[in-house]
Amino acid sequence: MTRSAVMGMGSWGTAFAMVLAEAGGQVRLWGRRADLVEGVNRDHRNPGYLPDLELSHLVSATTDPAQAMAGADLVVLAVPSQALRQSLSGWRALIPGRAVLVSLMKGVELGTTLRMSQVVQEVTGLPSERVAVISGPNLAPEIARRQPTASVVACTDHDVAERVAQACATGFFRPYTGVDVVGIELGGAVKNVIALAVGMAAGMDLGDNTKATIITRGLAETARLGTALGADPLTFAGLAGLGDLIATCMSPLSRNRTFGERLGRGESLAQAVAANQQVAEGVKSCRSIRQLAREHGVDVPITEGVVAVVHEGLSPGDLGRSLLSRARRTEGG
Amino acid sequence: MTRSAVMGMGSWGTAFAMVLAEAGGQVRLWGRRADLVEGVNRDHRNPGYLPDLELSHLVSATTDPAQAMAGADLVVLAVPSQALRQSLSGWRALIPGRAVLVSLMKGVELGTTLRMSQVVQEVTGLPSERVAVISGPNLAPEIARRQPTASVVACTDHDVAERVAQACATGFFRPYTGVDVVGIELGGAVKNVIALAVGMAAGMDLGDNTKATIITRGLAETARLGTALGADPLTFAGLAGLGDLIATCMSPLSRNRTFGERLGRGESLAQAVAANQQVAEGVKSCRSIRQLAREHGVDVPITEGVVAVVHEGLSPGDLGRSLLSRARRTEGG
Repeated sequence: MTRSAVMGMGSWGTAFAMVLAEAGGQVRLWGRRADLVEGVNRDHRNPGYLPDLELSHLVSATTDPAQAMAGADLVVLAVPSQALRQSLSGWRALIPGRAVLVSLMKGVELGTTLRMSQVVQEVTGLPSERVAVISGPNLAPEIARRQPTASVVACTDHDVAERVAQACATGFFRPYTGVDVVGIELGGAVKNVIALAVGMAAGMDLGDNTKATIITRGLAETARLGTALGADPLTFAGLAGLGDLIATCMSPLSRNRTFGERLGRGESLAQAVAANQQVAEGVKSCRSIRQLAREHGVDVPITEGVVAVVHEGLSPGDLGRSLLSRARRTEGG
Repeated sequence: MTRSAVMGMGSWGTAFAMVLAEAGGQVRLWGRRADLVEGVNRDHRNPGYLPDLELSHLVSATTDPAQAMAGADLVVLAVPSQALRQSLSGWRALIPGRAVLVSLMKGVELGTTLRMSQVVQEVTGLPSERVAVISGPNLAPEIARRQPTASVVACTDHDVAERVAQACATGFFRPYTGVDVVGIELGGAVKNVIALAVGMAAGMDLGDNTKATIITRGLAETARLGTALGADPLTFAGLAGLGDLIATCMSPLSRNRTFGERLGRGESLAQAVAANQQVAEGVKSCRSIRQLAREHGVDVPITEGVVAVVHEGLSPGDLGRSLLSRARRTEGG
């Protein structure tokens, strides 16, 4: 039986704990908030996130990271992207000797432009074959309702990816395996920026042709950037590229899309932040992704446009006009 | 100034005539129905399709195919897929000596499993460099409202593709060019089948993860089939693959998606046909696409499943269970 520690009790951490338990594993959830931990241990529910999801007796919770990680085969990281470095620095000494670290996080660290698995390796000193990532069309509320979906588990060591996949394979959650960690992580990070652009189009009352065009060309720029960083371009046509992007852009639950819609309707950044009660992930990461692209000489017009609207005062209407007035060319060009 | 004949006065033919005129060309629409022709010539509107779209004085219409095609540089074909062979056989002798034939049609001919450009070549005897195809996220009602979108013009001769692209490039319609005629056409045909599957999922109240997974794996099987037929796999990540597929699957206007929803809610094929008032394109083409796949030894589980539900009495619920119980593997495998 696989023993897992899931570090983080937000929606995705909680839903993934359920998946691991459903696959037959024993799971310890770690969270900072005692009320959430107590809810899981007493009522088998996380009262703060997905409160309708009943967790099995195989899932317990603790506020003590040492207790969560003791004897774990898998240490699943599900904290906010920009908080990872600090959290993990405190946990470093507690990681069991042979555990595999599994990142559920999507983002690029501000300042360093490192992907999450790179931050994990830098902080822990672990080799790449001890670090796996999981990404795909995995909106947590739908997984909590056991609706069928698929995902990709990637690790530079394919046997490790396969072991992690076995630990989370259930009748409704279907993990494929792969080795392209760079591509899997980049797809997850850039999709938030593309979802902002799709939201802007929706906010301007544009239709499905326009949204589909933004998604397609957005994925093309993600693939260009990924290829420059060493990813396999075909990864972006897969579940963690296209799949995750579509789910995010279709879903009315997506914070990035909703945030973009507000900007598209003419609200200011401050108004959108106030209404959404938090800053959408893409608002934070669009600048680090633009920085990555510039460092590698890659053309990312949609990301550039999103940065210009979100941070530099360009109107969404002017963004649309500037994208359409670029020189025509061959599609792959 | 480019002179075009647009053969067919349905939604896409009418909207594309507007695009050609907006790009500065002169357009003659051909249609069988005198009332539609008269509407265009008298009121600059097609009263049968997109009646709110005002056409410029550069667009006229006729019921006489000879008059429509006389002196045309481009002959744009926009008739129903399964009617192409018969219509074109009657027009063959009227095609001007240097005209390029441009197919807007999406489908695979029943019985022969030929793509539309293959039917064009077979009927006219023209070489491939005289036949271009156009496909992309191009829902006609949105183009009629001049909402921004992009498309791909493909021809084995890239200069011809570029000439056709110039003839239809406007501020809101952005044609990219390419040479992968096989991939562009196949994407357009298979997307109707995938949209049926996405509709079934929606009809069963499944969420965006499931839909995104079907779209992603559906595109993967389209790419497998296309590659076996000689297409460039990257075409399917582009506007005529992914882009068109997303627009179709997102749009509440898509007949294929709506049809699938009815089946997903438990209606019979006969009930769905009665309610939709016509058979969706994917219902017709799923069998010829399955036949193509079997002839080339390509695994197309979603297409097989759609055929089984639509024509062989499998329930949509059983389709979902059978897709999820397939052996897990690497994503590209």
